[in-house]
Amino acid sequence: MIELTDVAYVRSGVADLDKAVAFATEIVGLELVTPAEPAVGAQSEPRSAQLRADWRHHCLALIEGGSGVIASGFSVPDEDALAAAETELERSGFTVSRGSSSAARDRRVGSFIGFSDPFGNRLELVAQQETITRPVAFARPAGITEFGHLCLDAPDVREAYRFWSAHFNARVSDWIGDAACLMRIDPVHHKLAVFKGDGPGLCHMNFQVATIDDVFRSWHFLTERGVEIEMGPGRHPQSTAIFLYFLGPEGFTYEYSFGVRRIEDDTAWRPRTFDPAEPGSIDMWLGPTRKPTTQPQLGAS
Amino acid sequence: MIELTDVAYVRSGVADLDKAVAFATEIVGLELVTPAEPAVGAQSEPRSAQLRADWRHHCLALIEGGSGVIASGFSVPDEDALAAAETELERSGFTVSRGSSSAARDRRVGSFIGFSDPFGNRLELVAQQETITRPVAFARPAGITEFGHLCLDAPDVREAYRFWSAHFNARVSDWIGDAACLMRIDPVHHKLAVFKGDGPGLCHMNFQVATIDDVFRSWHFLTERGVEIEMGPGRHPQSTAIFLYFLGPEGFTYEYSFGVRRIEDDTAWRPRTFDPAEPGSIDMWLGPTRKPTTQPQLGAS
Amino acid sequence: MIELTDVAYVRSGVADLDKAVAFATEIVGLELVTPAEPAVGAQSEPRSAQLRADWRHHCLALIEGGSGVIASGFSVPDEDALAAAETELERSGFTVSRGSSSAARDRRVGSFIGFSDPFGNRLELVAQQETITRPVAFARPAGITEFGHLCLDAPDVREAYRFWSAHFNARVSDWIGDAACLMRIDPVHHKLAVFKGDGPGLCHMNFQVATIDDVFRSWHFLTERGVEIEMGPGRHPQSTAIFLYFLGPEGFTYEYSFGVRRIEDDTAWRPRTFDPAEPGSIDMWLGPTRKPTTQPQLGAS
Amino acid sequence: MIELTDVAYVRSGVADLDKAVAFATEIVGLELVTPAEPAVGAQSEPRSAQLRADWRHHCLALIEGGSGVIASGFSVPDEDALAAAETELERSGFTVSRGSSSAARDRRVGSFIGFSDPFGNRLELVAQQETITRPVAFARPAGITEFGHLCLDAPDVREAYRFWSAHFNARVSDWIGDAACLMRIDPVHHKLAVFKGDGPGLCHMNFQVATIDDVFRSWHFLTERGVEIEMGPGRHPQSTAIFLYFLGPEGFTYEYSFGVRRIEDDTAWRPRTFDPAEPGSIDMWLGPTRKPTTQPQLGAS
Amino acid sequence: MIELTDVAYVRSGVADLDKAVAFATEIVGLELVTPAEPAVGAQSEPRSAQLRADWRHHCLALIEGGSGVIASGFSVPDEDALAAAETELERSGFTVSRGSSSAARDRRVGSFIGFSDPFGNRLELVAQQETITRPVAFARPAGITEFGHLCLDAPDVREAYRFWSAHFNARVSDWIGDAACLMRIDPVHHKLAVFKGDGPGLCHMNFQVATIDDVFRSWHFLTERGVEIEMGPGRHPQSTAIFLYFLGPEGFTYEYSFGVRRIEDDTAWRPRTFDPAEPGSIDMWLGPTRKPTTQPQLGAS
Amino acid sequence: MIELTDVAYVRSGVADLDKAVAFATEIVGLELVTPAEPAVGAQSEPRSAQLRADWRHHCLALIEGGSGVIASGFSVPDEDALAAAETELERSGFTVSRGSSSAARDRRVGSFIGFSDPFGNRLELVAQQETITRPVAFARPAGITEFGHLCLDAPDVREAYRFWSAHFNARVSDWIGDAACLMRIDPVHHKLAVFKGDGPGLCHMNFQVATIDDVFRSWHFLTERGVEIEMGPGRHPQSTAIFLYFLGPEGFTYEYSFGVRRIEDDTAWRPRTFDPAEPGSIDMWLGPTRKPTTQPQLGAS
Repeated sequence: MIELTDVAYVRSGVADLDKAVAFATEIVGLELVTPAEPAVGAQSEPRSAQLRADWRHHCLALIEGGSGVIASGFSVPDEDALAAAETELERSGFTVSRGSSSAARDRRVGSFIGFSDPFGNRLELVAQQETITRPVAFARPAGITEFGHLCLDAPDVREAYRFWSAHFNARVSDWIGDAACLMRIDPVHHKLAVFKGDGPGLCHMNFQVATIDDVFRSWHFLTERGVEIEMGPGRHPQSTAIFLYFLGPEGFTYEYSFGVRRIEDDTAWRPRTFDPAEPGSIDMWLGPTRKPTTQPQLGAS
Repeated sequence: MIELTDVAYVRSGVADLDKAVAFATEIVGLELVTPAEPAVGAQSEPRSAQLRADWRHHCLALIEGGSGVIASGFSVPDEDALAAAETELERSGFTVSRGSSSAARDRRVGSFIGFSDPFGNRLELVAQQETITRPVAFARPAGITEFGHLCLDAPDVREAYRFWSAHFNARVSDWIGDAACLMRIDPVHHKLAVFKGDGPGLCHMNFQVATIDDVFRSWHFLTERGVEIEMGPGRHPQSTAIFLYFLGPEGFTYEYSFGVRRIEDDTAWRPRTFDPAEPGSIDMWLGPTRKPTTQPQLGAS
Repeated sequence: MIELTDVAYVRSGVADLDKAVAFATEIVGLELVTPAEPAVGAQSEPRSAQLRADWRHHCLALIEGGSGVIASGFSVPDEDALAAAETELERSGFTVSRGSSSAARDRRVGSFIGFSDPFGNRLELVAQQETITRPVAFARPAGITEFGHLCLDAPDVREAYRFWSAHFNARVSDWIGDAACLMRIDPVHHKLAVFKGDGPGLCHMNFQVATIDDVFRSWHFLTERGVEIEMGPGRHPQSTAIFLYFLGPEGFTYEYSFGVRRIEDDTAWRPRTFDPAEPGSIDMWLGPTRKPTTQPQLGAS
Repeated sequence: MIELTDVAYVRSGVADLDKAVAFATEIVGLELVTPAEPAVGAQSEPRSAQLRADWRHHCLALIEGGSGVIASGFSVPDEDALAAAETELERSGFTVSRGSSSAARDRRVGSFIGFSDPFGNRLELVAQQETITRPVAFARPAGITEFGHLCLDAPDVREAYRFWSAHFNARVSDWIGDAACLMRIDPVHHKLAVFKGDGPGLCHMNFQVATIDDVFRSWHFLTERGVEIEMGPGRHPQSTAIFLYFLGPEGFTYEYSFGVRRIEDDTAWRPRTFDPAEPGSIDMWLGPTRKPTTQPQLGAS
Repeated sequence: MIELTDVAYVRSGVADLDKAVAFATEIVGLELVTPAEPAVGAQSEPRSAQLRADWRHHCLALIEGGSGVIASGFSVPDEDALAAAETELERSGFTVSRGSSSAARDRRVGSFIGFSDPFGNRLELVAQQETITRPVAFARPAGITEFGHLCLDAPDVREAYRFWSAHFNARVSDWIGDAACLMRIDPVHHKLAVFKGDGPGLCHMNFQVATIDDVFRSWHFLTERGVEIEMGPGRHPQSTAIFLYFLGPEGFTYEYSFGVRRIEDDTAWRPRTFDPAEPGSIDMWLGPTRKPTTQPQLGAS
Repeated sequence: MIELTDVAYVRSGVADLDKAVAFATEIVGLELVTPAEPAVGAQSEPRSAQLRADWRHHCLALIEGGSGVIASGFSVPDEDALAAAETELERSGFTVSRGSSSAARDRRVGSFIGFSDPFGNRLELVAQQETITRPVAFARPAGITEFGHLCLDAPDVREAYRFWSAHFNARVSDWIGDAACLMRIDPVHHKLAVFKGDGPGLCHMNFQVATIDDVFRSWHFLTERGVEIEMGPGRHPQSTAIFLYFLGPEGFTYEYSFGVRRIEDDTAWRPRTFDPAEPGSIDMWLGPTRKPTTQPQLGAS
């Protein structure tokens, strides 16, 4: 059993780095950590940018190149736990690659391993992700408080849950029929979700905001700037979070949400099942719903 | 000084009674108290309907005939207070008419007087409005908890405040420049508002709802049925209420709102001034704003 | 202004003393304080009985003779207050008689005065009603905690309120249209009520009980013994009390009730008006209602 | 040990579906979920109706055909738990049938199994009963908050408890002599009861209501409509719930109750024994009592 | 380890049943449950009486015949626990007799077993003692709230504790040297005590009262009626209870007490030792003390 | 209106000073402040002793000579208040004598005046009674916390109350018919009482003790030493204090009491009347009652 302590980051490949960075900062409001310039002499390195939202050094890395999600990162407690995870995954038949130290430096973690889930989603487990103390210099006051969760696609969410619950400390919090499995690794209702999709990919990346006002101010902010609202403002009955999904460049969906449920008594919680066909199962305010755009896994066939 | 204890009712004239009643019940969700049928032999009486939202016997009376607001009613403590109000208003130069006992019975009050404010808005003061105990049979589950406030138009809101504060226990809670004066007569931030308008009329009639979910469910409910949303969903920075304004038949604007501020320490409150030209002064979520449609005063020149 | 501090007692004339005492003890559950025997040598005195329910020496005196209520007693703070009340009532044109010291001894008060209200109800004001310390020896476990209130009849309840509010510290708590005026003299919602009736009389005498279970156990107890239930079990929307009215011998109505509202913030309370014709105005549980039997004033023409 | 997490539903066969649905909606107040019409082309399917009371998609299914209860459903935590339960029951000698996927779809559950208890009561265990988010559209304001419990008949309640406690997480909360065994599967005093009866059947289906007022308003509502009150209003000393039992069409007994006891400290609770022959053991208000009508198990010999 | 959940009853033989019942009711204040008459045709049955003090059907049974305590009853959780206790006691060498069903019915329990402790005290363990819901009809307002504890005699209290702690969940709360061992089976400081005495017998039977006033009112009540006060009013330093011991007919000692200590944190409590020769060890008010009269075990040699 | 701030002291004449001091210390437990020796050369001064119970330098002065109470002292706020009191009393016709400075020194006060009430009780009003900081060196651990109140005799308690309420800030807290008037000058239920007696005198002097245990330990302590218990242990229903009255030498009655009521809301308190002939009016525990021995006023005819 591998203990995931938190979500760590998303790495996404973009064809137009400048445009993606502009969106991530000016629209989403993230802080650009490092300039999107290659280090001197590091010509062979692709251009990239790191975006910060909270105590993490960065939670989003945009890498110039092919368009598509590269990897989703999760933290484990320490180096020993990472080594144990590596062993366990290999024993279970997964092909695990250990990251180079320069790659680890680049991710601002102590070390990491990479592997693919049974559906082709590329995952990274990291030890010792860097914590930054100084306040985040948000590019606009969107009210972001933290990187909240990430959501992957898989063709069979029950199969996906079997993967996550067999190897990790992930517990299902609620089912949306065969359409989604919402999982927790700490008291937050879900830090990880799997949505039913044709192939592997990142369905969306979530950022928590501080007040309900932040959700609605961003709604108008985005609308005025012509950003495509994919769903919301609405409210998920599972997590009780008030949400807003919107589409960034190259098929990358961001979500703002406020008021996510915390499951304080873990043993007393009983997962519930919601039928996605029933009105209100996705948005308890009964607004129009559709699955947000997924950014496909880069390199998946 | 005349003590207003609460808002009592709105009386509105409608050309198409059936359509107005259908909207008030099926769309707004109010209970139809009495059938819109004339009493037997009461041929000369116009057809009318009374709508209930809370403990009041009714808070909205629709009267077949010309289109336009007929009167706005406010409660005073008792019959003695009503008599004293009558005297005080007459001494101040207002023409006051005492309602007949059959008119009082029709309004379900002990007795009442009528007069016009300096701008032509027709007002009624009532004693002993009937309280109903049994649960309201709402026509749809809109979540309405009570008739919250009413808003009148006047060409000069400062002049209007002079009228209300000189003769009544109304205190300004906040100013929106020269565009609006929000007044309280009890701990609720405003039970009465005056908006700047060309002539006398009822700007809107407000109903409080029980949860934020009610506001947003109604937003979709109204949108799906083609009802014109006039403003919102948004949030007023003055009262912190989350609002939704929508247009009923014959220019009558309804508002749902949730979470109105209560001013518990009356003496400590300092009225604030907001510039209507500043973004966020009407809707702190920064959505598009416009003055809701006013139903003109019937009989006003 | 005469300050009434509490209700003191009811004095009722009965043709069959033994039967009335048996009912008051075995059915109602009161303690019989003194045996219904005349003092030795006191041949001219009528036989009587005193019933106890709480700290009062007695709150109900049954006097053998004609059938009908004799007087309703209220306490004033002390002897000086009694003397002042005497003066004030006489100045207002009431004929006031001061009780003899033997009559005061019999009532277990320091002293008292008697007079009639404008409708013919005989009232007594008393100073220094005796407090008894030892536990009440209830004749059956009905759960009685105290003599709660008394209700008089008058042909015009608004006129009656003018009388009570002009001369006493009684404030209306709620109106049931022209059918009843419920008045408080302390935080209890009503210690005194006036119901519309043809002539003067005691509409009912109320006893508070300790739990909701007491009301319902007594309901079955009374029904099994063939006692006529006049109204209830039901719940008054005005006081929120759960009530049960039942008829004793010679037209004397008793009421048990539980959970009467206390008006802790006297100045904030606004009297409400309920229409007796509206379902739920008397019994918010919507059960059948009728005015309880009134025991007429003895000696009223 | 099979963990029951909640009661799920009752399935009852009715000869007159329209009448049963009319009663369940207009009288009991439930929401009719699906119209009682067969799907197009599904000629062989009996007509049926599903009734909703709370977050469950439905808790009562009425199936046209023979009159009698068809099955009582209970939830287990998930699919794995259901599979384990199937194995355990079969090992214990019960004949277990797994529901078809179309039958599961019809019940709005992920999957289910069926079997009979030793007395002939047909039981179903279900995984993933659907949760509905949108407010229940109650057919009348009865104040229902949830499907509270169900009660089965068995000829020997001690034998019945041996069955429930041997195979399930059911613990006796209180005994009413040999007449009833009240069992809990969560903090609610009882979610399941077994009453002594001649053969298998559903003694009653319980709905919790929000306030004591709801119980009593329904009492008058039912009485005025000629519905047979089977017992109550009364109060059970075991659960302290205030109850009202009434008879629906074809021998189906409904119960409203308010104020059921919660056993928060499970280990400290000691089951008590009440003698049904002692006054007050069924109704602590000491009203008349009788066993509610049981709807026999359909297909039982 | 046999779990005792509570004290159940005392059965005492009396030569003069009428006198003993009169004392238990008129003086002690208990309710006489069943008339002291034999059932029709049950000529061989001795006359007996059952007395009630609380939720127990009865806690004291007086049986006409020889004078002396017959048995002391304790509850165990259920029938299974009773059967296990029977086995455990027999394995430990005690001669255990199972009560007949008619004897169980007579005791108002589901079933019971009887045996003697090593000192000759006759004990009964019972399952499913009946709970009565209706209020106790106390014969006088002594303020009794429950049967509090019972106290047995034994020649060696340490040996007695060895017996109780070896076979039962009894824990010593405090020692009074070699004179007494006070034991708890729930949070009450002691539900069971053993006093040093020459032979087996019931030292006293305790009833808790509701207020300190009850203890003192009974003190005067008893004194005025010539009842022998054996000890008190005083206060036990061990339990902090204010006590009054008095002697009933045929050597049966009753105790009233108020304010017994509850040991909420069982594991933190350390038993203390008091020297009976030290002033204040029995009565912290330093009044005169003596061992109350013990009613000897009937049938003990 | 003269404001009394507290009771100050009692001065009592004794024929046998040594015996009286021995009782006051060894039995009552007070600290002897100054040796009962005359100052050198002060031959003409009578021997005396001062006894301390609390922060007061002394609250009891025993003066060798005739047997009888000499004076009761009360404090006023300051010297100005004392002068004003002197004037007011003289204007009202009382003969007032101002104490010499040596007499003031002896009383350990700044200054004082003396006069007689209309019944012959000698009173002293004092300014600036000395406060002592060091702990009281009680002669035995009786648990005394303070000099609680004093009680005077008068032939007519209503007349007495007229005197006290006309000239002082004394308010009646409760009446015991014509037998006693209990008065407060601060939140304590009574600091001053007047009992009906044949002539002037000190009925008793009260000391508060810290716990209920102190009252009862002293009860046995006094009984064992042959001290005459005059009344108690009992409980006064007026003050709810648990009391014990006992007789000292030369007819001086002491009282210990615990748990006196505090009247925190002065304006809400309504004086009650208790009939001394009713059981429980003096001792709510219903024990035997009698008026304690009064020490007559010295010098009264």
